[in-house]
Amino acid sequence: MFRSPIQHCRQCGAPVVYRLPDDGDTKPRAVCTACATVHYENPLNVVGTVPVWGEDGAEVLLCLRNIEPRRGKWTLPAGFMELGETTAEGAQRETIEEAGASIELGPLFTLMNVARVGQVHMYYRARLLNDHFDPGVETIEARLFTEDQIPWDEIAFRTVRETLERYFADRRQGLFGFHSIDIA
Amino acid sequence: MFRSPIQHCRQCGAPVVYRLPDDGDTKPRAVCTACATVHYENPLNVVGTVPVWGEDGAEVLLCLRNIEPRRGKWTLPAGFMELGETTAEGAQRETIEEAGASIELGPLFTLMNVARVGQVHMYYRARLLNDHFDPGVETIEARLFTEDQIPWDEIAFRTVRETLERYFADRRQGLFGFHSIDIA
Repeated sequence: MFRSPIQHCRQCGAPVVYRLPDDGDTKPRAVCTACATVHYENPLNVVGTVPVWGEDGAEVLLCLRNIEPRRGKWTLPAGFMELGETTAEGAQRETIEEAGASIELGPLFTLMNVARVGQVHMYYRARLLNDHFDPGVETIEARLFTEDQIPWDEIAFRTVRETLERYFADRRQGLFGFHSIDIA
Repeated sequence: MFRSPIQHCRQCGAPVVYRLPDDGDTKPRAVCTACATVHYENPLNVVGTVPVWGEDGAEVLLCLRNIEPRRGKWTLPAGFMELGETTAEGAQRETIEEAGASIELGPLFTLMNVARVGQVHMYYRARLLNDHFDPGVETIEARLFTEDQIPWDEIAFRTVRETLERYFADRRQGLFGFHSIDIA
């Protein structure tokens, strides 16, 4: 299982059982034993940015995590996409919440499937409008790093590492692409 | 609301109330009145393909919907992404389920935010390996259309229309891009 299995119906509170629904669906779902409501569970989107500063985006903003998982490791600003926002709006919101950074959002840069945990991660390129940061409670420190300064052994998540690697590789080539990556 | 509000806790079955959680979260969530579990609700991904056939992809495969919503309207094969699969795997699965088509999957072509209903739609380009289709129960008929034949007034969803328009526009230019689109 990816998450805690559903125990009770969100509509009526009765217990559910995991079984094939009666509508021809081929996957077991949590089906209510009282009202027969079928409960679907689907992947979640995580959205964030690669906020850059300096000549040709030589420096990238990373946040030192103040929350689990991976407290004390460095990450790009990112978090779960919320209802009512677009992927771009969510990426911008997380950058403000976690780093207190002012950015101009650019195009989508990476889309990474992490099927093992049922997540899709999307990072947008972003240009920092100034180098004043005001990190929120989820962040111990927000700091700019050149490629040589990136703490590669202290990066919180594989998705962040993959995105940073491609950012600096594309920057060296002088051409930024869009990268679709599967994380095993 | 985008969907039916949560009434009961999936963990213990007690009633929930929508309120700000105690962890500093700034959005109201369904919080259990008994065990205090916080229930998050997030956008869903819809994944599909633009399956093409013929010289330079002159024909596109559309499916006549046999299910609501928009029964009797034409769509590209697509559906909700499932746990345990990537966006690409989900797009391929839906193409098999809805059209019974054999495809070779290409790159991601459109990513469309439909924030109003809490959905992100992603379409991959795909090359049909043959023109034999075996549509599933969700589809009345699967048929190839040239640009001139596309039933523009009978397309099921705005996301499908936007994707088809960009497919034929890019094809005329001889260069396929990646398109990020917000659907109001």
